[in-house]
Amino acid sequence: MQKEFVELGFAKLDLDRFRRRGFAEVIFCKGKTKQQLLKIIKELIKHKQPILLTKLERKEFRYLKRYFPSLKYNPLAKIAYAKKLEVKANSYVCVITAGTADIPIAEEAITTLEVMGNKVKKIYDIGVAGLHRLYTNLDTIRKAKVIVVVAGMEAALPSLVSGLVAKPVIAVPTSFGYGANFFGLSALLTMLNSCSPGIGVVNIDNGFGAGYLASLINKG
Amino acid sequence: MQKEFVELGFAKLDLDRFRRRGFAEVIFCKGKTKQQLLKIIKELIKHKQPILLTKLERKEFRYLKRYFPSLKYNPLAKIAYAKKLEVKANSYVCVITAGTADIPIAEEAITTLEVMGNKVKKIYDIGVAGLHRLYTNLDTIRKAKVIVVVAGMEAALPSLVSGLVAKPVIAVPTSFGYGANFFGLSALLTMLNSCSPGIGVVNIDNGFGAGYLASLINKG
Amino acid sequence: MQKEFVELGFAKLDLDRFRRRGFAEVIFCKGKTKQQLLKIIKELIKHKQPILLTKLERKEFRYLKRYFPSLKYNPLAKIAYAKKLEVKANSYVCVITAGTADIPIAEEAITTLEVMGNKVKKIYDIGVAGLHRLYTNLDTIRKAKVIVVVAGMEAALPSLVSGLVAKPVIAVPTSFGYGANFFGLSALLTMLNSCSPGIGVVNIDNGFGAGYLASLINKG
Amino acid sequence: MQKEFVELGFAKLDLDRFRRRGFAEVIFCKGKTKQQLLKIIKELIKHKQPILLTKLERKEFRYLKRYFPSLKYNPLAKIAYAKKLEVKANSYVCVITAGTADIPIAEEAITTLEVMGNKVKKIYDIGVAGLHRLYTNLDTIRKAKVIVVVAGMEAALPSLVSGLVAKPVIAVPTSFGYGANFFGLSALLTMLNSCSPGIGVVNIDNGFGAGYLASLINKG
Amino acid sequence: MQKEFVELGFAKLDLDRFRRRGFAEVIFCKGKTKQQLLKIIKELIKHKQPILLTKLERKEFRYLKRYFPSLKYNPLAKIAYAKKLEVKANSYVCVITAGTADIPIAEEAITTLEVMGNKVKKIYDIGVAGLHRLYTNLDTIRKAKVIVVVAGMEAALPSLVSGLVAKPVIAVPTSFGYGANFFGLSALLTMLNSCSPGIGVVNIDNGFGAGYLASLINKG
Amino acid sequence: MQKEFVELGFAKLDLDRFRRRGFAEVIFCKGKTKQQLLKIIKELIKHKQPILLTKLERKEFRYLKRYFPSLKYNPLAKIAYAKKLEVKANSYVCVITAGTADIPIAEEAITTLEVMGNKVKKIYDIGVAGLHRLYTNLDTIRKAKVIVVVAGMEAALPSLVSGLVAKPVIAVPTSFGYGANFFGLSALLTMLNSCSPGIGVVNIDNGFGAGYLASLINKG
Amino acid sequence: MQKEFVELGFAKLDLDRFRRRGFAEVIFCKGKTKQQLLKIIKELIKHKQPILLTKLERKEFRYLKRYFPSLKYNPLAKIAYAKKLEVKANSYVCVITAGTADIPIAEEAITTLEVMGNKVKKIYDIGVAGLHRLYTNLDTIRKAKVIVVVAGMEAALPSLVSGLVAKPVIAVPTSFGYGANFFGLSALLTMLNSCSPGIGVVNIDNGFGAGYLASLINKG
Amino acid sequence: MQKEFVELGFAKLDLDRFRRRGFAEVIFCKGKTKQQLLKIIKELIKHKQPILLTKLERKEFRYLKRYFPSLKYNPLAKIAYAKKLEVKANSYVCVITAGTADIPIAEEAITTLEVMGNKVKKIYDIGVAGLHRLYTNLDTIRKAKVIVVVAGMEAALPSLVSGLVAKPVIAVPTSFGYGANFFGLSALLTMLNSCSPGIGVVNIDNGFGAGYLASLINKG
Repeated sequence: MQKEFVELGFAKLDLDRFRRRGFAEVIFCKGKTKQQLLKIIKELIKHKQPILLTKLERKEFRYLKRYFPSLKYNPLAKIAYAKKLEVKANSYVCVITAGTADIPIAEEAITTLEVMGNKVKKIYDIGVAGLHRLYTNLDTIRKAKVIVVVAGMEAALPSLVSGLVAKPVIAVPTSFGYGANFFGLSALLTMLNSCSPGIGVVNIDNGFGAGYLASLINKG
Repeated sequence: MQKEFVELGFAKLDLDRFRRRGFAEVIFCKGKTKQQLLKIIKELIKHKQPILLTKLERKEFRYLKRYFPSLKYNPLAKIAYAKKLEVKANSYVCVITAGTADIPIAEEAITTLEVMGNKVKKIYDIGVAGLHRLYTNLDTIRKAKVIVVVAGMEAALPSLVSGLVAKPVIAVPTSFGYGANFFGLSALLTMLNSCSPGIGVVNIDNGFGAGYLASLINKG
Repeated sequence: MQKEFVELGFAKLDLDRFRRRGFAEVIFCKGKTKQQLLKIIKELIKHKQPILLTKLERKEFRYLKRYFPSLKYNPLAKIAYAKKLEVKANSYVCVITAGTADIPIAEEAITTLEVMGNKVKKIYDIGVAGLHRLYTNLDTIRKAKVIVVVAGMEAALPSLVSGLVAKPVIAVPTSFGYGANFFGLSALLTMLNSCSPGIGVVNIDNGFGAGYLASLINKG
Repeated sequence: MQKEFVELGFAKLDLDRFRRRGFAEVIFCKGKTKQQLLKIIKELIKHKQPILLTKLERKEFRYLKRYFPSLKYNPLAKIAYAKKLEVKANSYVCVITAGTADIPIAEEAITTLEVMGNKVKKIYDIGVAGLHRLYTNLDTIRKAKVIVVVAGMEAALPSLVSGLVAKPVIAVPTSFGYGANFFGLSALLTMLNSCSPGIGVVNIDNGFGAGYLASLINKG
Repeated sequence: MQKEFVELGFAKLDLDRFRRRGFAEVIFCKGKTKQQLLKIIKELIKHKQPILLTKLERKEFRYLKRYFPSLKYNPLAKIAYAKKLEVKANSYVCVITAGTADIPIAEEAITTLEVMGNKVKKIYDIGVAGLHRLYTNLDTIRKAKVIVVVAGMEAALPSLVSGLVAKPVIAVPTSFGYGANFFGLSALLTMLNSCSPGIGVVNIDNGFGAGYLASLINKG
Repeated sequence: MQKEFVELGFAKLDLDRFRRRGFAEVIFCKGKTKQQLLKIIKELIKHKQPILLTKLERKEFRYLKRYFPSLKYNPLAKIAYAKKLEVKANSYVCVITAGTADIPIAEEAITTLEVMGNKVKKIYDIGVAGLHRLYTNLDTIRKAKVIVVVAGMEAALPSLVSGLVAKPVIAVPTSFGYGANFFGLSALLTMLNSCSPGIGVVNIDNGFGAGYLASLINKG
Repeated sequence: MQKEFVELGFAKLDLDRFRRRGFAEVIFCKGKTKQQLLKIIKELIKHKQPILLTKLERKEFRYLKRYFPSLKYNPLAKIAYAKKLEVKANSYVCVITAGTADIPIAEEAITTLEVMGNKVKKIYDIGVAGLHRLYTNLDTIRKAKVIVVVAGMEAALPSLVSGLVAKPVIAVPTSFGYGANFFGLSALLTMLNSCSPGIGVVNIDNGFGAGYLASLINKG
Repeated sequence: MQKEFVELGFAKLDLDRFRRRGFAEVIFCKGKTKQQLLKIIKELIKHKQPILLTKLERKEFRYLKRYFPSLKYNPLAKIAYAKKLEVKANSYVCVITAGTADIPIAEEAITTLEVMGNKVKKIYDIGVAGLHRLYTNLDTIRKAKVIVVVAGMEAALPSLVSGLVAKPVIAVPTSFGYGANFFGLSALLTMLNSCSPGIGVVNIDNGFGAGYLASLINKG
């Protein structure tokens, strides 16, 4: 029987997670030193676990890259990983942003989805101020198995998309904007209060969480 | 020279307001006793001022009606008035609601507009979850001089409408909804953070204020 | 071609929704008068749409029942409906509550799911203060296609459940509690900040929204 | 027929907006890289669209200036533009600030107004602590077609101005102040709760939005 | 030597307060039963202390009146007292309200001031939407030793008054209003962020506290 | 081996809790029907568990009393119980209130403590506005093993008490007050920000939680 | 007759303020450029006005010092001034801090008071965790005409001081602390909710406002 | 008799605290200059008081170290001290973190505990997403006299731990996380709303306060 976790002193690496959850423990890098990250990756490799590091700054990535040359990095998404799992299903996840500034969070969702072995189609900058951009892409959106919508400011896009399709929508509020957006609170509340049912919301700027949830649904 | 105000002890009735602002002092009834309202109306009539009473409960209206039989009442809008000013301009104000529950606040705006002598067209229940209802009415919306949009919950409608027209939009958040709408805060923040410029926001449930502002623009 | 919506003056009933979204327009009863509800149901029946009424008080239900004797009501869930769609899939949705007081919101999710034609298994009162109650039911939870977790107060249950399974979790914060729960805000924030990925959150007390989203995933 | 939008990958440039809204898509620069801005401007020029860039830092402006030498910049307003539209109407917009520190946001409104072809008169530093400064300028204020009032801290000026005129007032709360102003929240709430009807509020520090709305009203 | 306090079990009545603070312990009635109030008054009378009861509902007053026929009551102010101290100073406190709905809180301040032996002049309903009402009364305001300003909604009046005089202003935010006033929060923040120095703010609806502070200043 | 929990459908009664935690599952009555409470008590009695019901309204108590005549009730504390455990330790818990209005929450703590077998000394109404009332009781406070301080409004008392003793203080904010206390938020924040270390805070109005924690410390 | 204000374009300097308010316009330096400050000071000198500059950074002071060598600076208080007015009254203001970290804000109050011609006594670091430090200084506190109390964190000191004296207390919350102090919000709420009447509160970190108000009272 | 405090001008050092509270005044370094810290330490040494400095940056420590070479520093905990008191009791405190990022706050608690003479056992990184890590350590947790649990994000761990043991739990919310954690507010609310009684909460990131309280309980 495989050990359930590895004790590193500063961390207990959960080795049983792949069995329970279908994917290994993902490392949230904020709040960890690069030395700690180094030790964690070593253990993950030793135990043949997939590697996925989120919210990793480029500087820390460069440090790790010296030790693990095969590590890849999406600088927009701030995600590092060893390899993308093979895509098995035909279904795909559609990832949409309301604006250009929402792209980094969308990329975080997309990289997460691809590393977990999902097919992704992306559509960027469908603002509510010009809906023809939405209608042009409606076919791609409707055929997805699940849709991730990333939006800041007034964040009305998830409601609009959800109102047009019979698919689950995962809404990601971003902290993008200023003034009375209060660091993403406005977008978050908009999404939670949507009058269109069929939307699940994740934390502000949590592209990873949205990708992970979309992967569970897409593969389910 | 006309007296500038009447001293009632509990109130100083501003008689100069019609000259300064183009309309007499409007009486906000919340927080005033029916006896106080009675005295105020007497003075308004004595000084030949138009009468507009907002947020007036039906019970108080009935009390006042006994003294001023010509007083009219819109129970949905909770507004009483003596008469509607004659409409002079050809232009009109379009008042739209996102849902059925937003109608009382829209009626407050409409009665205000009509009492102040404006032509109004109304379109109710254009939710973002079914946009074809918006497109069917687009011509009426586009030809208005100014548009009032009343919406609760996620309140995305003002952004959508504003994105389709070259007219000023006045957005009225309503307290309608539950949970994380926090008594209208969610709708208010959505409207303030709209990515579509050309929107001015008034207080939560302030149909009167929206109507008043729309009247100033429509007649300007 | 079928008409896209019916104009009722106070409402525009969206008849195209079944085609677009896989289910008819669901009527949110809060903020509508019983006369308005009556007219809406008549139109829904006339156009052969399924009927689902949420947040309907018992008094209003009784009024409607006189006109539509076949209307059914779940008083805990405050939901009325005409009939439950036939269950076609083998997969099921597991609905869990943290406490007894969360049951009404869970019932709202369950009735929604059943009316939309889903198989449901329910497990009530799995508080985090006694985890053996969770482990006893783990097999039922793990085999679900999607899991709805309803919790108030500190709302830690979705994190716990999500950490044990490879299935999407829909978390419903409830307003149940007192003091610093601030009407459900505490539970909402807990769920959004979960360190276990794979959770989508809906509005406070929004059992209907959770059921609807779960149905989309279960049938997807 | 003109193309409705240009696909740039990271952005979908809305070319139909001028037709719909009377002005081209305005570029909100925060959250976009300078390379993205460069590509967007190239497309705007190619399609003969007016250019207006908001919240643009001086460093980014200098980069763009090398490619488009005719680009102009208001460093206080953080706005760049190609040219100001010709003024056709005789009416003007009056832009007022409560304090000196509110000037940058007022300049953002003014530059927006001028680029959109409006005549503007500005009056700076009319604090409520010295009202004679307001009365001296009352004639200029009263003759405007629409008035923009920019204020931070307690933000009482819009109420005062609105109480003296029969013109629509657009209120812009600024984040200027400290302590319990909570980044502009105090000013925002003051403006929303004004007892003087006829005020529409825009987002905190949103000088552009105020200018855009004022332009729609001034030209309407 | 006088006893420092009386032990009543549910309360410890502070008998030393008159010596330390210049006035006896004032009884805040909210949260106390009428039986508790009865016992407290008996002790106050026994120890020859002045009696001042705040936030006392009429029903409770009637109960107490049966036992203490000389007890007086201001129903607007919800204050009961035994007698008003003799006025010794020539100076007076000016109490101003912005609107009619702020009068109950102003009356609470005035009764407190009179019971504590101060001369008071009151001016009601000086809204910022009609400043001539302020200027007419300016002489009375300027000659006061200290000014109490009671205002709800946007609460701009304390700033205006303070900007015109060389006297300390005590500002009392009221919970009067609706929507984004958030139970008085808006008025409170406005007053705290005033750009006119010389203002001290008390709790929302705390007319008593304002009167007490004004008395200390007036007699100081 | 004893069963770990009893399945009641609407609840899973945790029978293992006494072994794990030293006391049986306490029933939080808010959100449960009287029929549900009845069934729960029957099971508790059947399994020889101690009975403690919190936040129980008098009406519900009377219903239950008919079935379980030995049930006792503290109407101030809104707590019902079958019997108080025998006191074994000599040490005691001191429960203090700042005001009279905090007594119900203090009684909730005291009844909890006594049912769990602790000796309690109580001191009521030690407001910070008269500190001699604190010093008179200092000896009783200092000799306690743990101190519970219940306070609303500005809630400064826990800091004061903690600064005088070498004992752990449990602070209970109450929702008592008005205006900017925001339902106990002010008291809660005061207690969390105390400059005197040695204070643990529980939820607003959570007298039961304070009593339970104090019991664990007193018996530890 | 003296000119009422000087027009500087970016500012309108209020020359009438000394007459109205007993002191010239005080310059709040945040949000103004050093060039603007330079021009303002030149005008103040030209019109023989006293000079008081608040929230002035040392760098800006050094720039101004080159032009006005007689300008003085309190770097702790971040205040510059030309000279202190002569003290005429015998009465004094007592300024107290709860902790060492509150001293800069206290110094801002003290310099303001001294420039305005008041006698000041200061007592620093009287934390509530050691009240003997308060009692030792009680005589100095009691004999003051008005007391300024500066405190952060739980900010209980104003309540304590007010409870011991018959003098008005001005409470200044500071943003000092961390975590749930939320930038001074905790201290602000504590002070507003004080159970000891006789306290007026100013904005967070507003030492100047406290000093100004204290000066009005001390000289009144 | 020993002097009660030392007057340093900027601080009043409380020398009586050891007698009253069992430990000397602990110096909170934030907001104090290094020169002030130097003077404070000199006095503490002169009066033979134990030294404990919290929230001390490394740079300031290095400055102090030159004067007091025996001063020790835990850079993770940001705590400096002269020596650890001898451990006398057999009982120990168990300090647990939910994640790796919570370790600095846990170290602050641990160093505080050790300097105050307590035995500590620590367990790091017991996330709720992998509960087997908790069960493996359950024996160590259960045998502690008191348990400190440090957690950010959704902060569910204190509820879980408390539900398994009969010991007091001190919960420390950390500001670790992003988005809707609002700087630790989410974790704080979770802990306050725990459905498992027996938890006392301290301020966000207040490891020192948790250690101090745990020491009082452990030695009690």
